[in-house]
Amino acid sequence: MGSLEAIPGSVCAPAGFRAGTSAAGLKESGDPDIALIVSDRPATAAGVFTTNRVVAAPVVLAKERAARGQARGIVVNAGNANACTGNQGLADAHRMAAVAAEALGVGPEEVLVASTGVIGHRLPMERVEAGIREAAGRLEADGAAAARAILTTDTRPKEIAVAVTVGGQRIRVGGIAKGSGMIGPRMATLLAFVTTDAAIWPEVLQASLRSAVERTFNCLTVDGDMSTNDCLLVLANGAAGVNAAPGSPVHTAFCEALLHVCTHLTRELARDGEGATKRMQVEVTGARSALQARQVAMTIANSPLVKTAIFGNDPNWGRILAAAGRAGVPLDPVRLQLTLGGIPLVRGGEPLPYDAGEARKALAAEEVCVVLDLGQGRFAATVWSCDFSYDYVRINAEYHT
Amino acid sequence: MGSLEAIPGSVCAPAGFRAGTSAAGLKESGDPDIALIVSDRPATAAGVFTTNRVVAAPVVLAKERAARGQARGIVVNAGNANACTGNQGLADAHRMAAVAAEALGVGPEEVLVASTGVIGHRLPMERVEAGIREAAGRLEADGAAAARAILTTDTRPKEIAVAVTVGGQRIRVGGIAKGSGMIGPRMATLLAFVTTDAAIWPEVLQASLRSAVERTFNCLTVDGDMSTNDCLLVLANGAAGVNAAPGSPVHTAFCEALLHVCTHLTRELARDGEGATKRMQVEVTGARSALQARQVAMTIANSPLVKTAIFGNDPNWGRILAAAGRAGVPLDPVRLQLTLGGIPLVRGGEPLPYDAGEARKALAAEEVCVVLDLGQGRFAATVWSCDFSYDYVRINAEYHT
Repeated sequence: MGSLEAIPGSVCAPAGFRAGTSAAGLKESGDPDIALIVSDRPATAAGVFTTNRVVAAPVVLAKERAARGQARGIVVNAGNANACTGNQGLADAHRMAAVAAEALGVGPEEVLVASTGVIGHRLPMERVEAGIREAAGRLEADGAAAARAILTTDTRPKEIAVAVTVGGQRIRVGGIAKGSGMIGPRMATLLAFVTTDAAIWPEVLQASLRSAVERTFNCLTVDGDMSTNDCLLVLANGAAGVNAAPGSPVHTAFCEALLHVCTHLTRELARDGEGATKRMQVEVTGARSALQARQVAMTIANSPLVKTAIFGNDPNWGRILAAAGRAGVPLDPVRLQLTLGGIPLVRGGEPLPYDAGEARKALAAEEVCVVLDLGQGRFAATVWSCDFSYDYVRINAEYHT
Repeated sequence: MGSLEAIPGSVCAPAGFRAGTSAAGLKESGDPDIALIVSDRPATAAGVFTTNRVVAAPVVLAKERAARGQARGIVVNAGNANACTGNQGLADAHRMAAVAAEALGVGPEEVLVASTGVIGHRLPMERVEAGIREAAGRLEADGAAAARAILTTDTRPKEIAVAVTVGGQRIRVGGIAKGSGMIGPRMATLLAFVTTDAAIWPEVLQASLRSAVERTFNCLTVDGDMSTNDCLLVLANGAAGVNAAPGSPVHTAFCEALLHVCTHLTRELARDGEGATKRMQVEVTGARSALQARQVAMTIANSPLVKTAIFGNDPNWGRILAAAGRAGVPLDPVRLQLTLGGIPLVRGGEPLPYDAGEARKALAAEEVCVVLDLGQGRFAATVWSCDFSYDYVRINAEYHT
């Protein structure tokens, strides 16, 4: 394995990437809402996308283009999801790419598109086009502005970069993400963009990405509501002059760095879930398969009763066991062991005595770990979520379409 | 078909049924918490139960006994679920039945048991036993007190009775139910008890019950959290002297009456969901199968984003389409048609203009109907739920285990 180290920055930390932003007036705040992430040279591209059957126009286009395995840049807007906008929406997504490509002097098929925001409204294309051109004129080797421009209801930007050195060769991986509800109050959704200066074949990049996503973004839930716009795109431009050939130590190091970046962004998304007062990490161990472990963990992490109990600092182990019991996984209640915030609460399916004051204190932490052992195998899974507070209801009930 | 008419009362409206209650101190309020429902003669029994893998002791016992197809009575306690209580809990459930049987002068295997309330605490058996004996001494032909005794966090009792006359023969079906969260703040859960004075074979009763439940209780969701104690029991004692032989007009009329009773109780449960300010009815039409229709309807009815929008009187059609899209059912966005509170909002997957004031008014009603046509077949399903308010969070976060 390589030695992994945190480095400053995000998507522009890898060599040969620049980013630019502008404000096209898509956000009521007037904040920047257009971002361009551009590689100085042709890059390998890969992506994973929402599996929602109601899918936004930019996702349709980005999926098609990412499948080509090669791209030069990504154009993103926040404040409007360009979803449920019919053929006109698809034409608008194409136009966003074409305008960005023209401004960057690359082929239109080399630009990927992502949108996030309210569903069912056409993009104001005149302002969007002007915004894209403006952003293209402001490219610099700094991803911080892009990390902010893609936000909607998020309360903070999410960014990270790491470098990994293996056999004297150094590559960098950086990423940014946004998302607060799976579908937020303004239909904000999860977007993530990752860059690397390693050289890597498209198929290998795609496989490496899928593997990392299975253990990170696919283990995240805020409210169980899947968006129409979810999209994670990766660009690998090879500017470091290091080839991550499959099976090589560089590839292993790259995967490790990619996993690190995805884990960080996933945890940051959980922490910033709509109305969240704390992050919840659910670990299920002792399962017969990794799939079963994740299924149980996800059911616990999505339970409104568990999430409200965590919000209320209540060690309500009964709700956790009841959620596990309905996960669709065969389990034997008398084998269950539960620890909440480090405090053992259940052994052999029956409650253990605990100190109520100590439990409340443990649950008032910034992150609460739920650890449930099923006692039937050697597989495990970890998922991330957050608590369920009055503010989730406020954010989502006070919004008006 | 028979002519169906509403009659006063509930589980004691059918001939030959009596009920009694007492207060054993299981509820903090000191309200009655023990109920007995008794048939004067041997009755056919049937039941449906939670499919949660973490299942309460009384469910284990009631399931076993209902499978015998014959019973004389049901003993119920509210305030303590007798769940996650191990072998002692099972012994306590047996003891409840034995004490009731002794007081009633019937065999212990002829008494079914149900419990609802907090998980993980042993029943105070001395008080429970005294309460059961007291209730057995107070049997009368009135189900109203039983309807109240079984409640936990419910805000109102749920009861109904109907009579149906077919070919000059008259039978009655009555029922009561409780439940506010699938698992409520005190681990309250859904219980329902139905009686009839029709005579009906156990297998036919069980099949008729399953059919009714598929279209009623199994189409209900408050928060998607399945309880450890859910249980619906039916007793048919034949006191009307009318045989509901399979395929007979009486059987058809009985099934109609049973469906009516189950539908009423289901709708009442939805209306009294935890924190509910209104009932939500979700109808999905134009599906390729009834299963697919229900799957889409359930996903919409369980979506926190849809439920908070309904609470906020917001015609947020985008959230409804996004929920439908993640239901795991193949669907074509351009065929979707959506009507909310009687107002057409989407046709061909794209938004229609609507009057915002009119929409808010329609959504402020006591019941809001979501009607989504998938445009791909002739199957439909209806499910019932409620909105998601601050009070759901309050009720479930302020509880302390």
